[in-house]
Amino acid sequence: MLVTAVIIFIVGIALLFTAISKAATHPNLVIDSNDVVEMRKAIAQPGQFQQTYLNSKASVDAQIAQDITVPLPKDGGGGYTHERHKKNYKLMLDAGIIYQLSQDEKYAQYVRDMLFVYAELYPTLPLHPKRKVGKQNPGKLFWQSLNEAVWLVHTSQAYDLILPSLTADEKNTIEQGLFHPIVKFLSVESPDTFNKVHNHGTWTTAAVGMTGYVLGELEWVEQALYGLDKSGKGGFLKQLDELFSPQGYYNEGPYYQRYALMPFVTFAKAIENNQPERKIFEYRNGIVLNAIDTTIQLSYNELFFPINDAIKDKGIDTIELVIGVTMAYGLTGDSGFLDIAKQQGQIILTGDGLKVAQALDNNLATPYQFDSVAFGDGNNGKQGALVVMRQDVQGEQALLFKPAAQGLGHGHFDKLTWQFYDKGEEIVSDYGAARFLNVEAKFGGRYLPENKTWAKQTVAHNTVVVDESSHFNGNVKVGNKNHPELLFFAKNDNVVISSAQIDSAYEGVNLKRTMALINLPTSDKSTAEQPIVVDVFNVQSNNSHQYDLPVHYKGHLISTNFDLNTQLTQLPVLGKANGYQHLWLKAKAQPKNGLSQITWLNENGRFYTHSSLMDGDSSILFTQIGANDPLFNLRNENAFITRKTNAKNHTFVNLLEPHGEFNPSKEFTVDAVSKVQALAHTKVNDIDVIEISLVNNTHYMLAFNSANNATTNKFSHNGSNYKFNGRFKLFEIKK
Amino acid sequence: MLVTAVIIFIVGIALLFTAISKAATHPNLVIDSNDVVEMRKAIAQPGQFQQTYLNSKASVDAQIAQDITVPLPKDGGGGYTHERHKKNYKLMLDAGIIYQLSQDEKYAQYVRDMLFVYAELYPTLPLHPKRKVGKQNPGKLFWQSLNEAVWLVHTSQAYDLILPSLTADEKNTIEQGLFHPIVKFLSVESPDTFNKVHNHGTWTTAAVGMTGYVLGELEWVEQALYGLDKSGKGGFLKQLDELFSPQGYYNEGPYYQRYALMPFVTFAKAIENNQPERKIFEYRNGIVLNAIDTTIQLSYNELFFPINDAIKDKGIDTIELVIGVTMAYGLTGDSGFLDIAKQQGQIILTGDGLKVAQALDNNLATPYQFDSVAFGDGNNGKQGALVVMRQDVQGEQALLFKPAAQGLGHGHFDKLTWQFYDKGEEIVSDYGAARFLNVEAKFGGRYLPENKTWAKQTVAHNTVVVDESSHFNGNVKVGNKNHPELLFFAKNDNVVISSAQIDSAYEGVNLKRTMALINLPTSDKSTAEQPIVVDVFNVQSNNSHQYDLPVHYKGHLISTNFDLNTQLTQLPVLGKANGYQHLWLKAKAQPKNGLSQITWLNENGRFYTHSSLMDGDSSILFTQIGANDPLFNLRNENAFITRKTNAKNHTFVNLLEPHGEFNPSKEFTVDAVSKVQALAHTKVNDIDVIEISLVNNTHYMLAFNSANNATTNKFSHNGSNYKFNGRFKLFEIKK
Repeated sequence: MLVTAVIIFIVGIALLFTAISKAATHPNLVIDSNDVVEMRKAIAQPGQFQQTYLNSKASVDAQIAQDITVPLPKDGGGGYTHERHKKNYKLMLDAGIIYQLSQDEKYAQYVRDMLFVYAELYPTLPLHPKRKVGKQNPGKLFWQSLNEAVWLVHTSQAYDLILPSLTADEKNTIEQGLFHPIVKFLSVESPDTFNKVHNHGTWTTAAVGMTGYVLGELEWVEQALYGLDKSGKGGFLKQLDELFSPQGYYNEGPYYQRYALMPFVTFAKAIENNQPERKIFEYRNGIVLNAIDTTIQLSYNELFFPINDAIKDKGIDTIELVIGVTMAYGLTGDSGFLDIAKQQGQIILTGDGLKVAQALDNNLATPYQFDSVAFGDGNNGKQGALVVMRQDVQGEQALLFKPAAQGLGHGHFDKLTWQFYDKGEEIVSDYGAARFLNVEAKFGGRYLPENKTWAKQTVAHNTVVVDESSHFNGNVKVGNKNHPELLFFAKNDNVVISSAQIDSAYEGVNLKRTMALINLPTSDKSTAEQPIVVDVFNVQSNNSHQYDLPVHYKGHLISTNFDLNTQLTQLPVLGKANGYQHLWLKAKAQPKNGLSQITWLNENGRFYTHSSLMDGDSSILFTQIGANDPLFNLRNENAFITRKTNAKNHTFVNLLEPHGEFNPSKEFTVDAVSKVQALAHTKVNDIDVIEISLVNNTHYMLAFNSANNATTNKFSHNGSNYKFNGRFKLFEIKK
Repeated sequence: MLVTAVIIFIVGIALLFTAISKAATHPNLVIDSNDVVEMRKAIAQPGQFQQTYLNSKASVDAQIAQDITVPLPKDGGGGYTHERHKKNYKLMLDAGIIYQLSQDEKYAQYVRDMLFVYAELYPTLPLHPKRKVGKQNPGKLFWQSLNEAVWLVHTSQAYDLILPSLTADEKNTIEQGLFHPIVKFLSVESPDTFNKVHNHGTWTTAAVGMTGYVLGELEWVEQALYGLDKSGKGGFLKQLDELFSPQGYYNEGPYYQRYALMPFVTFAKAIENNQPERKIFEYRNGIVLNAIDTTIQLSYNELFFPINDAIKDKGIDTIELVIGVTMAYGLTGDSGFLDIAKQQGQIILTGDGLKVAQALDNNLATPYQFDSVAFGDGNNGKQGALVVMRQDVQGEQALLFKPAAQGLGHGHFDKLTWQFYDKGEEIVSDYGAARFLNVEAKFGGRYLPENKTWAKQTVAHNTVVVDESSHFNGNVKVGNKNHPELLFFAKNDNVVISSAQIDSAYEGVNLKRTMALINLPTSDKSTAEQPIVVDVFNVQSNNSHQYDLPVHYKGHLISTNFDLNTQLTQLPVLGKANGYQHLWLKAKAQPKNGLSQITWLNENGRFYTHSSLMDGDSSILFTQIGANDPLFNLRNENAFITRKTNAKNHTFVNLLEPHGEFNPSKEFTVDAVSKVQALAHTKVNDIDVIEISLVNNTHYMLAFNSANNATTNKFSHNGSNYKFNGRFKLFEIKK
């Protein structure tokens, strides 16, 4: 009886007020009343949605059997009161959903009662005792206002879900005691954060705007969208304009992108439900959807590419992206998103979540398409780019090339660096952030001191270090003001190639790198069974410098085609500063003029050979991280560094080749030896020509023009004439 | 038509000759004619068996489309002719099976034609040109006779499968040209290998005996079973008596056990099919089945415990154990074996393989039961033991304690060492063998020089090293003549405990260790959520020595409760010889009297704290493998070594405690800090008393008597009186 009554009530409200204000129908924030009807049907039928509902209900039941606990704010991040208030918002939201689905009043009452406590407490609260003056904006429930906004994004949804169960008096108590004061605190009383074009600002505008919809305070919505003064200089739409590039890339990189994503998608959904006439999902050519999709594209084997300050274990199953993908599927019905949802393995109890669950139950997922893309950086997409190259031959290869901008305070000094992935694993790696998240014994779980002294430094990356100093001399402000220039990005069936340069990383030195991921078009797969990487790094200066090019490799060193002078009984440290003080020097070598090769074995069972064209003068240093690390904070990873000293101009020419298989379980090893027999590099006017000779008398030539996109490029090489249009061509040479 | 004819032919033969000689029915060696009838039915129906058949047939079809290639023997192991002859035996066996199942004569003809080539070649062959005189017994097709025997074990089966298709002339050609000469070569012409009680001998006797069954040469079978002189001093039965302990443990450890297993199970199956009256599977209380089961028991998370010279990637999916488990299920119908077969993921095309496939298709697998067992070592089971302890709380724990015998030439000098596994990963580890199997660039793929200089040495293990020298001074012969004594092994619902000693590893020094894996019976799981390890290592001597006890840990060092004196800018080597020359000394510490604690984080996301009772005089050395390693052959793994110098008697008291969770993906960390607050050890007459104090005022006391199995043990401790019967008791103390 009650059930019917509630439905009629909801439908009745909807019919009456829809023309006046969508917000008068509840729930209508992220879940709307149509969703509720469908979800109620779904929980009666076996499937993933029902299972998720039952699990969530069981969890909520266990929690609401306990007393309501709303402690006086006392602890900072990770502490008891901090964690308790976080648990409370999650519990209120979950209980609100269970109320709507089960139609059992006890869940609504629990949320109501907890909100009563908050409504009594909140007006009495001073700024949080653990606030960090001058470092972060203070909250009242939490040490920083960021957490307060996150709390409100969730709690406004919980309130929306239980509103139909409340009397006018109850609403008044909660809204006057809690929502009005907290919105006031986060908006007019914190104008800097509110108007800031930054992800902290997004959480705040989302929180205020969402609460505005629920309470029917459309003025709050306007402020959330256009800034406190409604001028459009701040607010959610400005944040959508500024924080993402046109392709949906977020300046700080994917680790922070997925975090920033959540208020964008949640508030956008609320806008769509309440004011569809704003067409928020069409805003800026669908920037919200682009941002979700780009976050997925910036992953490999379910983990995000760990550029900048990134925790390397973070991947696509993060809750922010679960919500994003769920919403993206709900909006588009694109079955590729289901592939990601399947890997995420989590269903959300929303209308979109129901669509995902039912589609997965019906096996509708199709493979998500990972592409080769240059994601323009900066709000205009022209402040460099983050370039992803992919090939998919016997286990997907991915190459990340990073002529991207600095990426604010969490950015690393790693202009033009690269990472390489194959057969599920890191092959040429990036350290990520030096941090043991939330492990108290490791510097309180915060970024370690070594994040600055090692992880951010240039030598911790796979790019050129000039004179043992870091890009921009390690100055973030200078880094943020400068960025590399993407010269080109191009691809055809066999080749993905990109070139970029920067002349501001070091004064008087121009760095220019071209990288290509090439699936050699040979019919003889015994010659080159896997795609290869070609890497041409040109450094130019009017003065003499030392140029170091590290390769941080993952695996066990198998062999070198030159003699190693290995430190046997004593390990010295490589340098004094800028990250060099953290490197043990394990061995040195000075390969002869010509082809030098280093082979390692990754734990994926495949061999990798890095071939370089050497001038007989450069040396190679084999290093391990770990010096000047009194508390064992760093991982002891390995690298080799090609060092050219006293040079003005120098070009590093390298080729990375995956090959063979080491299978100790089945006791066989094949192709443990590189197929590369020679490398050559010549420059004919603007054209770089890289000749690659493999076994079986197989020869290729990659020619590219990084100076301009010419209609016709002509050049002679070894007595033959060649030509190509555009940026590049791969030639197969018969000898 | 042809189909029917063949079946009638087989059945006819079976009816006529069964009373005279089972061997006259073909096939009857590993697959018999009843199997064939069932298998032919099965390949017509969808399921794993059909799928395996189709895959195998496709593979055979591709291979027999090529010319028959039987090269003149020329290369050693890994070389072309070596690998080709290996491929040939596998191809002949597979084609023989496809012939029986498809009843397509072309498969039989292919095998016949290849056998013709071998029959023509074999009598002309001298000893192999790459034989290693004095090092291994030479073959003719292969560099060593071991490979020749393996070849014959397979080829005799192939011949058995195609026999029904051959004319009398064809049989005569093949048997006189090939099987008679090769049997002669492997038996009467190689009496030493044939009679040797060693796994090489097992391959040889199996090969000769199986060929005897196929050719109806029962004299060969008798020789295979009882030795050339049929006295029983050599031969297969003697090997079954000597090579396994009564519990089915093979002296060299599981890595070699699974290899040795294959001829045992294959020949035993052939004996059962041809002479069931021998009741071979009942021999020595079912030693063949015990050996298969013990091989499974000696694994963790699908990989074998890597004691002695073991390749650590080797696990239960090894083909030898696939065959063993298949046969074991066929014999016993025990659905626990199906659990293992499912993890192996390979179906064998035999009668037993069909049973496994059908049972798996019908989801009949039940969880295989891993137990806590002391596997007696040596043929009488009394030469020490290999002890496995298991608990299963939130992810299975396994502790391997090794008071086992030396294990011949592949044994390590690691008496009383231990390994610990939790949540799928190695926590306290063993290096295994120093070898990159078949990787030519790494010392030809053979055991590396570092296998001897590092991996076999005592310091490479988790046991006491006296005066920086290895057990038995690293002398294998002395090691083989001596073994530890298992003092006891006992268990109850919460505790598995074992004690052992050895006084021959070092002259004048007695080593005695007691290890327990304890699931603390607390109702308060916040106090100790995981089982803990207690380790009491007592060393006694009349003279002063230096005692080192290493713990080779897997993970990242998180914290110590004492100050570290870390080498910051220069790493020295720890010692000069016996493995110490391979250790970098990264840090030193001298903890105060009392509780010292070292916490690390494993990649399984769990923390591990090693608590020790320190005397204020001992030091702790933190090391990394890698010194004196010019070619980067060693893995750079970490250890800490507790060092007590100038001591006669010393007892190391340690506790290992898994705790908490580090979840960077979901961004939470819980219980990163140990719950252990104090340790105490007292000895009351024969009774060791270990007191363990945890947080929340929780106290336990483990008392054990390693001297004798007393009816009543009484002792006083802290003013209270306690008693227990037998070997041990765990007391919960209220304070």
